[in-house]
Amino acid sequence: MEVICVGNELLIGKTLNTNAQWIAKQATSLGITVKRVTVVADDVNEIANAIREAFGRKPHFAITTGGLGPTFDDKTLEGIAEALNRKLAVNTEALKMVREKYKAYAREKGTEKVELTQARVKMATLPEKAKPIPNSVGTAPGSQLNSEQTILIALPGVPSEMKAIFNDTIAPLLKQASGKSVFYEKSVYVDGVMESSLAPLIDKVMQVNPSIYVKSHPKGREDTSNLEIHLSITADDGERAEEKLRKAVMQLSRLVGDIGGEVIVYG
Amino acid sequence: MEVICVGNELLIGKTLNTNAQWIAKQATSLGITVKRVTVVADDVNEIANAIREAFGRKPHFAITTGGLGPTFDDKTLEGIAEALNRKLAVNTEALKMVREKYKAYAREKGTEKVELTQARVKMATLPEKAKPIPNSVGTAPGSQLNSEQTILIALPGVPSEMKAIFNDTIAPLLKQASGKSVFYEKSVYVDGVMESSLAPLIDKVMQVNPSIYVKSHPKGREDTSNLEIHLSITADDGERAEEKLRKAVMQLSRLVGDIGGEVIVYG
Repeated sequence: MEVICVGNELLIGKTLNTNAQWIAKQATSLGITVKRVTVVADDVNEIANAIREAFGRKPHFAITTGGLGPTFDDKTLEGIAEALNRKLAVNTEALKMVREKYKAYAREKGTEKVELTQARVKMATLPEKAKPIPNSVGTAPGSQLNSEQTILIALPGVPSEMKAIFNDTIAPLLKQASGKSVFYEKSVYVDGVMESSLAPLIDKVMQVNPSIYVKSHPKGREDTSNLEIHLSITADDGERAEEKLRKAVMQLSRLVGDIGGEVIVYG
Repeated sequence: MEVICVGNELLIGKTLNTNAQWIAKQATSLGITVKRVTVVADDVNEIANAIREAFGRKPHFAITTGGLGPTFDDKTLEGIAEALNRKLAVNTEALKMVREKYKAYAREKGTEKVELTQARVKMATLPEKAKPIPNSVGTAPGSQLNSEQTILIALPGVPSEMKAIFNDTIAPLLKQASGKSVFYEKSVYVDGVMESSLAPLIDKVMQVNPSIYVKSHPKGREDTSNLEIHLSITADDGERAEEKLRKAVMQLSRLVGDIGGEVIVYG
C-alpha cells in the first residue's frame, strides 16, 4: 500500500502528519504493508505526478488524504482525474450524499434549505467511474477508483472524517485483501550496552529468526544506552508468531547478558 | 527542497514523523519551499529509488533523515551511494569524528578505550566525495554530497541529533540560498459561516492579493463553522509583507461580515 497526503500545511510544517501515522498503523495491524508515504502540495500537477508514480509501482492499494473539500485549493480529485486520464463530472450518488448533508444541517438549525452552490457541488464532482464513499462525520464523500492493479481511495484530510470513512469502509476492504495475516510486535529495552555494541547481536538474532524483523531505536546519546528494541513479525498463526517473538527475545537477552548488558521486558 | 525520511517505524505507524514537520517548518521560515516529503523503508532499493526520483525533480536541496546508525538496518548511505553511482568507503575525516566520540565516552565513564568495531566504522563509511558533518549530540556524523543541481544532506533520525546538525550546519546553508526571502503567516478564525460558503470569498481575497496564499482549515463538522483561515506570503520585505497580510485579513473580514459571519483575530 502507498499513502499520498495532500496539503500545503504539511509542507510548511504547520500541521503534523498524524493522518499518515494513523493509516499506517491501522493498515499494518490489518496485515497490509505500507511501502511509501508521499506528501505533496495543493497543486494539480504535484498530485497527479505522485499518483502516477505510485501507480507505476503497482501497489494493491493507494490511499490519498486531504483536498476533497469545497475550496479552490481542494484539488485531489482533479489531480487523480489528470493522472488517470479520466474526466471529472458531477456524480449523481455523491451529489445526493452532499445534498442530504446540507438538508440535515438546515434541519438541525431550523434554517431554510441550504443552496447547492458551485463550491458544494464541487465536493460531488468525481473522476469518471469513481464510486463515492459515505462520510458519516463531515460533508465531502470519499471515493474509490478501481484500476487494473491498484485500488485508489481518496479520503478527506480532517482526521475525524478520514478515520470514520476508513473504519466504516476501508478497513473491511484491507482485511479482506490481507486474508489471515496479522502484524505482531514486541518492544524490549536494553540497558548497559551501546547501540553499536548491540548491532552484531541483532544481526545474529535475525539470522536465527529470519521471519522476525528486529530494529533498535536509540532514544538519546549512544553512551547513555537508552535503547528500545522492536521485534515484529507478520504471520497467519497468532500463537506461533507470539512464540517466535518470545524465543527471539530470550535469545537477545542471553546475547546481551554475555556482554554485560540487560534486556528489560515490560508486560 | 525535498525531504526523504527513512525508517520502517514510520511506515508501520509506530513513530509519528515529527522530523519531517520540524524540518519543513525550519526550512519554510528560512524562505525555502518544501515541495515533497517521501517516507520509505529501511531498504537499499527503496532508498535509492526515492533519492533518484527526487534528483530527477532537481530540487536545490534534498535532506534525508534516519538510517545513519551502526546497525544492519541503517542503510541510507548505501542507498545514496547506489542512487548516485558512487562507491562507499571509509571517510578519514568521518572516522576521526567517530573515534573522538568513543574516546570521549570512555573518558567520561573512566573505562578503557572503546574499540572501533565494524559497526562503529560503518558510521564513517560514506559515499565517495561526501563531506561528513559534525554531530554535536550523537555518534553518527551527517553528510553532505554536492551534485550538479542538488545538494544532498543526510541527517540522523534521532530528533535531538537531527536538530543539532540542522541548526549548526544546515540552517546557515539554507539561509544563504534563500537570500532575504522570509515566510510570513497569520491565522484568523471564522465564526458563523460554513467552509463551503466561505470558498468563493477566499477566491476573491486571493484574486485581489495574488502574492498571498489563503487556506481554510476546518476543525470539525462543516456546520459547526469551526474554521481556521491561514494566510501566508514569502517575501523579502517584512514590513510590506505584514501590511499585505493585514489588508487581506481586513478584506476577508468585510466579505465574511457581508454574509453574516465574523472573523476573529487573536493578537
